[in-house]
Amino acid sequence: MDKFLCGVDLGGTKLAAALFTPQGELVAKDMVHDHSDKDGDGQVLAIRDLLTTLFRNNNIVPADVAGVGIALAAHINFKKGMIITTSNFVHTITDFPLVEKLGAFFPGMKIVLDNDANAQAFGEHKFGAGQGCESLVFVTVSTGIGGGIALNGKLHRGRTGTAGEVGHSIIDLDSEIQCTCGNYGCTMALASGLFFPDLYRMHLKRGVESSIGITTETADKMNGPAIKKGWQEGDPVSKAIVEQSAAVVGAELFNIFSMLDPELIILGGGLMALGEEYQNRIRDEFRCHTYKMMVGEMEIKLAETGVDAGLIGAAVLVLE
Amino acid sequence: MDKFLCGVDLGGTKLAAALFTPQGELVAKDMVHDHSDKDGDGQVLAIRDLLTTLFRNNNIVPADVAGVGIALAAHINFKKGMIITTSNFVHTITDFPLVEKLGAFFPGMKIVLDNDANAQAFGEHKFGAGQGCESLVFVTVSTGIGGGIALNGKLHRGRTGTAGEVGHSIIDLDSEIQCTCGNYGCTMALASGLFFPDLYRMHLKRGVESSIGITTETADKMNGPAIKKGWQEGDPVSKAIVEQSAAVVGAELFNIFSMLDPELIILGGGLMALGEEYQNRIRDEFRCHTYKMMVGEMEIKLAETGVDAGLIGAAVLVLE
Repeated sequence: MDKFLCGVDLGGTKLAAALFTPQGELVAKDMVHDHSDKDGDGQVLAIRDLLTTLFRNNNIVPADVAGVGIALAAHINFKKGMIITTSNFVHTITDFPLVEKLGAFFPGMKIVLDNDANAQAFGEHKFGAGQGCESLVFVTVSTGIGGGIALNGKLHRGRTGTAGEVGHSIIDLDSEIQCTCGNYGCTMALASGLFFPDLYRMHLKRGVESSIGITTETADKMNGPAIKKGWQEGDPVSKAIVEQSAAVVGAELFNIFSMLDPELIILGGGLMALGEEYQNRIRDEFRCHTYKMMVGEMEIKLAETGVDAGLIGAAVLVLE
Repeated sequence: MDKFLCGVDLGGTKLAAALFTPQGELVAKDMVHDHSDKDGDGQVLAIRDLLTTLFRNNNIVPADVAGVGIALAAHINFKKGMIITTSNFVHTITDFPLVEKLGAFFPGMKIVLDNDANAQAFGEHKFGAGQGCESLVFVTVSTGIGGGIALNGKLHRGRTGTAGEVGHSIIDLDSEIQCTCGNYGCTMALASGLFFPDLYRMHLKRGVESSIGITTETADKMNGPAIKKGWQEGDPVSKAIVEQSAAVVGAELFNIFSMLDPELIILGGGLMALGEEYQNRIRDEFRCHTYKMMVGEMEIKLAETGVDAGLIGAAVLVLE
């Protein structure tokens, strides 16, 4: 009998776990929201309890699952199954052997840990927009920007597991906007939701006028949905931010093409909700950079694994 | 008996061919300089004649070689053994089936065609600075900037063979310097020898004064060696160009690290002759971008295959 796949999505606001068939169909899902202030050992216990409940409620034993994949937004040492550092929990977790600790509660079970962008890249490769593709790069444009690279049916993680960090590629050496990584002019700092307030203030300083009454003092509330609303209402600053984001993401897709020449780039993440005009702008910016360098057309598709992308991505890690 | 490796380096000024032992030791080398105004078929005949002479002078027959690898600075369709387009011959060669045409003169012989940066990357992996490395990126900083990626003992060429084109990565979206590829702010346009005259003029326009009497009219002669001399003589413009080149190359190495997290980056190409201070500046710029993102130290080494890098690179292609 084919075994279930089990995925754990360890997010900043929710901790979710799900069972899937080997074909990627969702069987059952459960989640909690009271984990984010726990330390590493606390997270392990929360995951253990969630899995135990999930298994019991579905009348299965650990031997019925092919393994558990865990994905989170963090710096991960894949080979060692360790969290190097987190940034979205109340207490930063560093150098924590999550796989080993969780494994103590499920002897003999295969447990795999990776960052969320890698997991989603592999999820898209197995059950999403990238099925049948030999080489793809998944780019998530959201609060931040991340990515994952799948080559020849495997994730390319690199020497220490940090490959695919396209959000920290420097694309504007002269930029005045500093990223959380410390550098200026990363794609993330110029195009992701986290920086929309900074970008709003920058455009105001440059003399672009807000038509929705936002000042440098109130710019902090200009997150993704607020920028979308402002853009729809004709606010020149919101428009400039959306256009800049599309220009930067499009140029970064060109840089990915220049470096890796993949069959496919898959776009995902919350900012895709800015809509088709934003997505088409990204594609247009990409194409206007390729000139004669493109042989045939490289595909750019939207992610398809949808609302459970994190869970299915985590679950398929055990198939790699 | 182990067979010889045979490499052909089809350059803009010289066409060279060489035999190597399976361990990469040079056995014999020959070259001509009268090929650059020939068309595709003319190049095939020139290569045939050079190989025939090389084999005869060394008392070997085609069956004594494991195969012939051909490398040139061009857009290559590796799978089809075709030149897509060249830029350094008198007549541009496009859509030309070089492997098939040369193969007609050497029935049964394995013939492999690739661009020079890929060939050098694989040469470094087999017999140079990258021996024993699972993942490396070779970057050549010269008249232009190119690169090659070796992963798990194979070249990563991508969908159409253009992977590794790090010279065309956009690193300064606001730049006023246009690259031969059509884009503004590529690493190549900001850091390679071909653009030193443009950069010299740009700095003059910005008010930096030449202390060696160079004007916008005479800036065309400021190639790599001239900039090196100017720098050594204390010319502020030459100094600014060298520092900018190092800053851009260092940032691009950081972008390569962010995307691929390789074990090793190998630096080669004519501009390494600017010397140790230039090379160290590149390393320093790289490190100052990595902040806390680096786990352990990624190595940056200089290329080791030396004067015959193009030939040994071409020859090892048959070992891939």
